[in-house]
Amino acid sequence: MFEQHRDTLEKALSAIAERGYWSAYPESPSPRVHGEGAAERGKEAFESYLGKPFPLDQPGTGAWIGAERSPYGIDLGITYPEPVAEELVRAATTALPAWRDAGPDTRALTCVEIVDRIHRRSFELAGAVQHTTGQAFVMAFQAGGPHAQDRALEAIAYGYAAMTSSAATARWEKPAKGAPLVMDKRFTVVPRGVALVIGCNTFPTWNAYPGLFASLVTGNPVIVKPHPRAVLPLAITVLIAREVLAEAGFDPALVSLAVEEGRGLAKTLATHPDVRIVDFTGSTEFGEWLERNATQALVHTEKAGVNTIVVDSTASWRGMLGNLAFSLSLYSGQMCTAPQNILVPAHGIETDEGHKSFDEVAAGLAAAVGKLLGDDARAVELTGAIVNPGVLARVEAAPSLGDVVLESRAPKHPSFPDAVVRTPVIVRVDPSRTDVYGHEHFGPISFVIPTGSTEESLDVLRDTIKARGALTAAAYSTSEDVLGQAERAAVDAGVNLSCNLTGGVFVNQSAAFSDYHGSGANPAATASLTDPGYVAGRFHVVQSRRPA
Amino acid sequence: MFEQHRDTLEKALSAIAERGYWSAYPESPSPRVHGEGAAERGKEAFESYLGKPFPLDQPGTGAWIGAERSPYGIDLGITYPEPVAEELVRAATTALPAWRDAGPDTRALTCVEIVDRIHRRSFELAGAVQHTTGQAFVMAFQAGGPHAQDRALEAIAYGYAAMTSSAATARWEKPAKGAPLVMDKRFTVVPRGVALVIGCNTFPTWNAYPGLFASLVTGNPVIVKPHPRAVLPLAITVLIAREVLAEAGFDPALVSLAVEEGRGLAKTLATHPDVRIVDFTGSTEFGEWLERNATQALVHTEKAGVNTIVVDSTASWRGMLGNLAFSLSLYSGQMCTAPQNILVPAHGIETDEGHKSFDEVAAGLAAAVGKLLGDDARAVELTGAIVNPGVLARVEAAPSLGDVVLESRAPKHPSFPDAVVRTPVIVRVDPSRTDVYGHEHFGPISFVIPTGSTEESLDVLRDTIKARGALTAAAYSTSEDVLGQAERAAVDAGVNLSCNLTGGVFVNQSAAFSDYHGSGANPAATASLTDPGYVAGRFHVVQSRRPA
Repeated sequence: MFEQHRDTLEKALSAIAERGYWSAYPESPSPRVHGEGAAERGKEAFESYLGKPFPLDQPGTGAWIGAERSPYGIDLGITYPEPVAEELVRAATTALPAWRDAGPDTRALTCVEIVDRIHRRSFELAGAVQHTTGQAFVMAFQAGGPHAQDRALEAIAYGYAAMTSSAATARWEKPAKGAPLVMDKRFTVVPRGVALVIGCNTFPTWNAYPGLFASLVTGNPVIVKPHPRAVLPLAITVLIAREVLAEAGFDPALVSLAVEEGRGLAKTLATHPDVRIVDFTGSTEFGEWLERNATQALVHTEKAGVNTIVVDSTASWRGMLGNLAFSLSLYSGQMCTAPQNILVPAHGIETDEGHKSFDEVAAGLAAAVGKLLGDDARAVELTGAIVNPGVLARVEAAPSLGDVVLESRAPKHPSFPDAVVRTPVIVRVDPSRTDVYGHEHFGPISFVIPTGSTEESLDVLRDTIKARGALTAAAYSTSEDVLGQAERAAVDAGVNLSCNLTGGVFVNQSAAFSDYHGSGANPAATASLTDPGYVAGRFHVVQSRRPA
Repeated sequence: MFEQHRDTLEKALSAIAERGYWSAYPESPSPRVHGEGAAERGKEAFESYLGKPFPLDQPGTGAWIGAERSPYGIDLGITYPEPVAEELVRAATTALPAWRDAGPDTRALTCVEIVDRIHRRSFELAGAVQHTTGQAFVMAFQAGGPHAQDRALEAIAYGYAAMTSSAATARWEKPAKGAPLVMDKRFTVVPRGVALVIGCNTFPTWNAYPGLFASLVTGNPVIVKPHPRAVLPLAITVLIAREVLAEAGFDPALVSLAVEEGRGLAKTLATHPDVRIVDFTGSTEFGEWLERNATQALVHTEKAGVNTIVVDSTASWRGMLGNLAFSLSLYSGQMCTAPQNILVPAHGIETDEGHKSFDEVAAGLAAAVGKLLGDDARAVELTGAIVNPGVLARVEAAPSLGDVVLESRAPKHPSFPDAVVRTPVIVRVDPSRTDVYGHEHFGPISFVIPTGSTEESLDVLRDTIKARGALTAAAYSTSEDVLGQAERAAVDAGVNLSCNLTGGVFVNQSAAFSDYHGSGANPAATASLTDPGYVAGRFHVVQSRRPA
């Protein structure tokens, strides 16, 4: 069954070894790719969920809960079954043995089928992602759809590679006096136990899929606990996974949904003795709580970080400003990968358009953002809407943090009058103000910081990231020597670095199968999407041997 | 440098993929293998340490401590520098960047050179292992020498394979409107941080080498904290490692020794914020403490277990009894892999010598042990000596636990009059006495347990191992069906199973490169020696990308 996905799996296995460009799922929402009417059918499918109980066949408890409200200003009105933690875990545990016994190949191909069906519903999911995260439609389609699907496939490939890196059977023949000792051995992959995936508000699918599929392919049943504000994308995902699993003859309880309204379900599940894997994306506070308390589980967390840009010099003044402006503006900076601290020498920088003072760099950046987002109707297609009141409060508080270089605006959304939209605010702060820039201000808030030199900038990068973590860092320089120093600082700080981005590649974007997301080597994340370390702890090998 | 080990590394990489028979280091102590005089020179080298400060160049604090006493009844009189935890960690941290920057190939080949030099000092190490653990000489040579060296090489190979499974550089070329987007990417392996290896009393080298070399090859400096009663084998190991590292131009602080006299150094080091990996072998109590408290670190523990034998039927009555008797007697059952619970149907079993009642099975086993250990001079070469007073106390308490089937004897050691030697005690207990057999009685203590049926025996196996863990399990049956059920129970319990061992392979022995030791899938161990999960969490990958 699902043998038709063998080729995709093989290609993914090559891709994770080579790490060049590869994608299994086209990112374009064009009808040329998805067929005429696909977008419309997806929109209808999304809208069909609104104002109703979600059609999940999972045993509930009678109570149906849910209070999602689109950042574009509409209540979704969808309710979901509120589960009893103990029952979810028990059902998952019961489902485990048959899934384990199915073996790596069947699991991997079944997982690819799940992703494939998710892909075919990318438009429906785009609507769900847009109206839970506030992402603009095209981004919701791409990041919430094909890009997330590629990350899922990547996790499946890593899991499959790890499970099959050693032989499943072997004959052991040891020379000995008289006759050799000969044993036949069998090695069985066994899952760690029930897995829990705790989703986030901003990228419900992209951040949840790697953990979901890494655990599932290695044999672990998965309980998906979405963020209360971003349930629908994961509810649809769970629905599809259960449908495929049931068709393949497995217990659909292998994937279940755990919706909550802030009554501590995540803590209850994460510390349940039978829950042996936790994948979490969210706040540093709860991530650290999980690391300290869910000691019975393998815990992978992605938390807050302080993404840093070091500007030393550039061969493309306009390219650099345009690229940075886009990175600050995309989804109103509500990406865990969006730049926050922009470090520029106080004495200015050399560029292809001559020397630019610190103030010229700051003003140039402000102007580039202003120009990019000058037209409201076009601006909102880049910024989307503000995901939740916490972000809005931080935007409003930002001017008090230093000297405002660029004020945030509130464009009117042409289609959604109640959408909460904000453009980036840029604030100048002194390098001494680590109390301000030394932690994350999640949202469209960035700081330009005049340093004594690029050397000091790199020290700030190293120190803040070692202390508070980061998902991304970038450097701009025309000097090989400085780029080398930046790479050295990035390795010391354990952060992924982008150099001299002036075109169509942005610091806040990572490509599955080539770029790693997070490193695990600084406090922002304990693992990387996705690498061998992300999958290896999710299963064990149990052997049996007998004389041949 | 050390390029001569490339071939050994390549062979080890093939071996871990194929998992058939392979060994890099000959296990025979014969002069034909090691040359004339090697044994004598090794003995002299061992004896040269006695009664003196150990010649470790590591910066100490002035205090020299140590109170090792051989289980064969002699004080070793060796002292070691007592370290300040903070200074050890600082020195290790300072040594890290150059080792990291050396890259996977240099690290792997340097690690193989360390193991190679350890191998050439196997006789010296055999003396050290014998007189700290109480193992008989041949076992101390094999298990403490070549077998431990093979496990070290296995860990190096797994680490190298994991670090090199993806390309170190890649060109990413994404089709785009106009020109493709082209980026050059570099992926750098970065270590997790300082690693701590906490050694055990009984197998100081065998149990410590996998963690030591898995951490070192992946770039982590390693602090080795031996058991206070078994310092010398690891002190020699650290000495050799530091010598090789210094010759290769690295800071010898990459490997250091942390000797203590029970003042909590292990806890201080294990919870130090810069200590990011802990490998531990020892008691369940301290292992669980580490799992709960060293939350800043990746913690791999090997703890107590309840190893179980299910006897259903056999085609070789004498082979089975002889094999089991050997497993119970070897090193007086002081192996984490030695059988403890022997489950036999109360109605007896079928054998090639006819039906045997439960009492005949128990008596047959007692007689086989009695015969194997009948001659004191030969017995001690199998049992060795009792490692510490805790084991002795358990042997003495065992008769009170049920009906004694075989009494423990105290053979006289012909060469060491003060050696504490004990042969196995076998006690019959009812299946209801889970309070007795449901936890580990470490030492030469085993239980024969009359069950209602083999099915009940398998239930007991499953239940006790799920609850308390095990390193090994075995089943004897002439029925394919029963063996299948046993394999199923072993997979459910997450324990490695041996079937129908009647010859020269024993349940308490595992061969590097083919057998896994521990599974990580039950409470006795959180990891397996050695598999991808054992190495993958010890490093991360940091990437750098720039436009091509």
